[in-house]
Amino acid sequence: MNGMNTAGTLRCYFCGRDYPFDPYLVLCPDCREPLGFLPAKPRRSIRTEERHPLTRHLDFLPLDHIDPSLGLGEGGTPLLPLARLGGLPNGVLLFAKNETVNPTGSFKDRGTSVVVQKARALGISRVGTVSTGNMAASTAAYAARAGLRALILVKGDTSAEKVRAATVFGPRLIRVEGEYGAIFDRSLDIARRHAIYFANSVDPVRVEGYKVTAFEIFEQMGGRVPDYLIVPLSSGGHVMGLTRGFLDLKAEGLAERMPVVVGVQASGCAPLARAFAAGLERYAPFPGPKTIAHAISNPTPPGGNVVLKLMRENAGLILDVSDEEMLAAQRALAESEGLFVLPDSATTLAGLARLAKRVRLAPGQTVVLVLTGTGLKNLEALESARVEAVSADLAGLDEAVSRLGV
Amino acid sequence: MNGMNTAGTLRCYFCGRDYPFDPYLVLCPDCREPLGFLPAKPRRSIRTEERHPLTRHLDFLPLDHIDPSLGLGEGGTPLLPLARLGGLPNGVLLFAKNETVNPTGSFKDRGTSVVVQKARALGISRVGTVSTGNMAASTAAYAARAGLRALILVKGDTSAEKVRAATVFGPRLIRVEGEYGAIFDRSLDIARRHAIYFANSVDPVRVEGYKVTAFEIFEQMGGRVPDYLIVPLSSGGHVMGLTRGFLDLKAEGLAERMPVVVGVQASGCAPLARAFAAGLERYAPFPGPKTIAHAISNPTPPGGNVVLKLMRENAGLILDVSDEEMLAAQRALAESEGLFVLPDSATTLAGLARLAKRVRLAPGQTVVLVLTGTGLKNLEALESARVEAVSADLAGLDEAVSRLGV
Repeated sequence: MNGMNTAGTLRCYFCGRDYPFDPYLVLCPDCREPLGFLPAKPRRSIRTEERHPLTRHLDFLPLDHIDPSLGLGEGGTPLLPLARLGGLPNGVLLFAKNETVNPTGSFKDRGTSVVVQKARALGISRVGTVSTGNMAASTAAYAARAGLRALILVKGDTSAEKVRAATVFGPRLIRVEGEYGAIFDRSLDIARRHAIYFANSVDPVRVEGYKVTAFEIFEQMGGRVPDYLIVPLSSGGHVMGLTRGFLDLKAEGLAERMPVVVGVQASGCAPLARAFAAGLERYAPFPGPKTIAHAISNPTPPGGNVVLKLMRENAGLILDVSDEEMLAAQRALAESEGLFVLPDSATTLAGLARLAKRVRLAPGQTVVLVLTGTGLKNLEALESARVEAVSADLAGLDEAVSRLGV
Repeated sequence: MNGMNTAGTLRCYFCGRDYPFDPYLVLCPDCREPLGFLPAKPRRSIRTEERHPLTRHLDFLPLDHIDPSLGLGEGGTPLLPLARLGGLPNGVLLFAKNETVNPTGSFKDRGTSVVVQKARALGISRVGTVSTGNMAASTAAYAARAGLRALILVKGDTSAEKVRAATVFGPRLIRVEGEYGAIFDRSLDIARRHAIYFANSVDPVRVEGYKVTAFEIFEQMGGRVPDYLIVPLSSGGHVMGLTRGFLDLKAEGLAERMPVVVGVQASGCAPLARAFAAGLERYAPFPGPKTIAHAISNPTPPGGNVVLKLMRENAGLILDVSDEEMLAAQRALAESEGLFVLPDSATTLAGLARLAKRVRLAPGQTVVLVLTGTGLKNLEALESARVEAVSADLAGLDEAVSRLGV
């Protein structure tokens, strides 16, 4: 059958059961938690002579080779030192890993690029996703680039505007009456029946792509692991991938330790922060989510329980921040560092302030904020710009400049 | 005086007169045409051991050194082979240089990054620009990053929405009653009086930054020059910089020949295409501009006459394309290649079709489209998406997928 492949083994993050790789197997048939790849290759190292982000880290990916023509130049994003923000913990060295400059403006391209490689390697000609935002745009764009057809499932009440950044790439689109969780589950059946590779948020292949971001941070820091890695937390796929990337480096003896991975949720939709604070092994769906951070507002994150487990095992943390804190952080990143991100991404900087109240950050410690999505996708609803405009005619311009005190 | 610097000489592109470098000198005092840098260094080569795009090409830039902390990780953008577009001239090898993945989503960051380096080297603490679009956002972002203050001048009737992608970075903003050309001229006086480095579209330092894109294309093509380089054409600064970059490579013996540089204007605002077609040395202001391509709709381009001269001297071409051709090209780039650009950038692909009617393109010839601005900045007004949405409930999803023929 098309799509079965013996070149990989999936293991349930939760119960540890193993299954042969199958592109339509996303959740453990037994416990319904996400599956992840076991290392396919015995000894893994970074191919430092290679520049392409996927080829460079091929040993760590469930792929035999990379076809660069299927990609859009994703990855290799900057790690920027942030030195101008006020109010930072004393002496801490802060960096931003700017994933917003990926081809469709978000970190999703990291995962989608690997999904498309895998789909083509398996001879699958259709990909799909359940999303109204960044993942839909990324999946539709990469499908177009690779000559695959794309199916986007959105909730019935989603506005046309909301999916515009995805529909421009010409995918098939279905509005489905139902809750996100139910659509997600149903998509897994649809995937197998119609041979559509549904690369949802916690898809094992997608998550492998996020590992590459961890590898890049490690290399950009001169072969060192940051003390803290702060990431927006929603479905859990991104945090799973980043954590797995650092675990891989440690397993191969390239890194000596793990960073403290800090997942940040919006207080208005914080099922995992709640469960973590209560020391629970499984989260409860978050009732009545309400936050401006739409990209991380998921009351039933499919990777939630796995993230709780990974945080327990690796001394990670889960925090939450208010919409006001996000907006202030969004403004600070733009006005002090020239970085314009979605409020969702600004949770990372807001999370740092929260973190500093919980742990003692020492001078010289390194903190990396992962900025996940460009603010350009939400220009219409931008709430953080506060420029007062002055008017002048040509004759009065000189005086206006003086008065404004530029 | 702050801002005077003997480490460079400016020459008028038009009359050839030389002036010592002065950051407030943009147009030739004699003929009011733009000035450009003479080579500051005797023998210039690419520093292939360096990765940072500016440091790598430092020999070619009017800077003594680069402070990477002033930048946002601009440059190093992908050169993507385009193989899936239909209707291309037979056997032509087409590439896209994707400048939309620069930090603020446009090619302007190339120029702004060099301007900010120069301003800091000169001890100038304020930068400015006359723009409502990409250049305003780029200037405001880089000013924030470098700790400079920024002044944005916009036409009086510009909407708050239009400048939102710039105001998020917290610049000073003045609405000026007057035409673009008059505001541009006035800004040059304001610059000197208030010691504000006004890095407008044809500023000599800004234009130097655009050369780096040419150098990257050359290296990404394995040390070869493309046969054709197709670029949107508005004020002229970008085309001037790209042309200058290839001229530099030729002057140093690194490249044997020049590409045919093809500037593309919108038919609804095509002062330079008109002048070029008529064989004129100087253009006339374009009456009643009307096009959806706002980023290249300039009826009085300050670099226009220089571009006409550069095209004559280097066998370049100027074409124009209609709004309908742009929209079709925008759709084709998105649906066939996963690249979402502004209609302005899509002029390049539309221009290729026009070009193929004028010159004989031979199999194996190489064509590079320079994609200048991300489509995300114009999501609200997007006219090219044409996805029909199908609705289904969870029970009917399976049938809907079959019916849709994904």
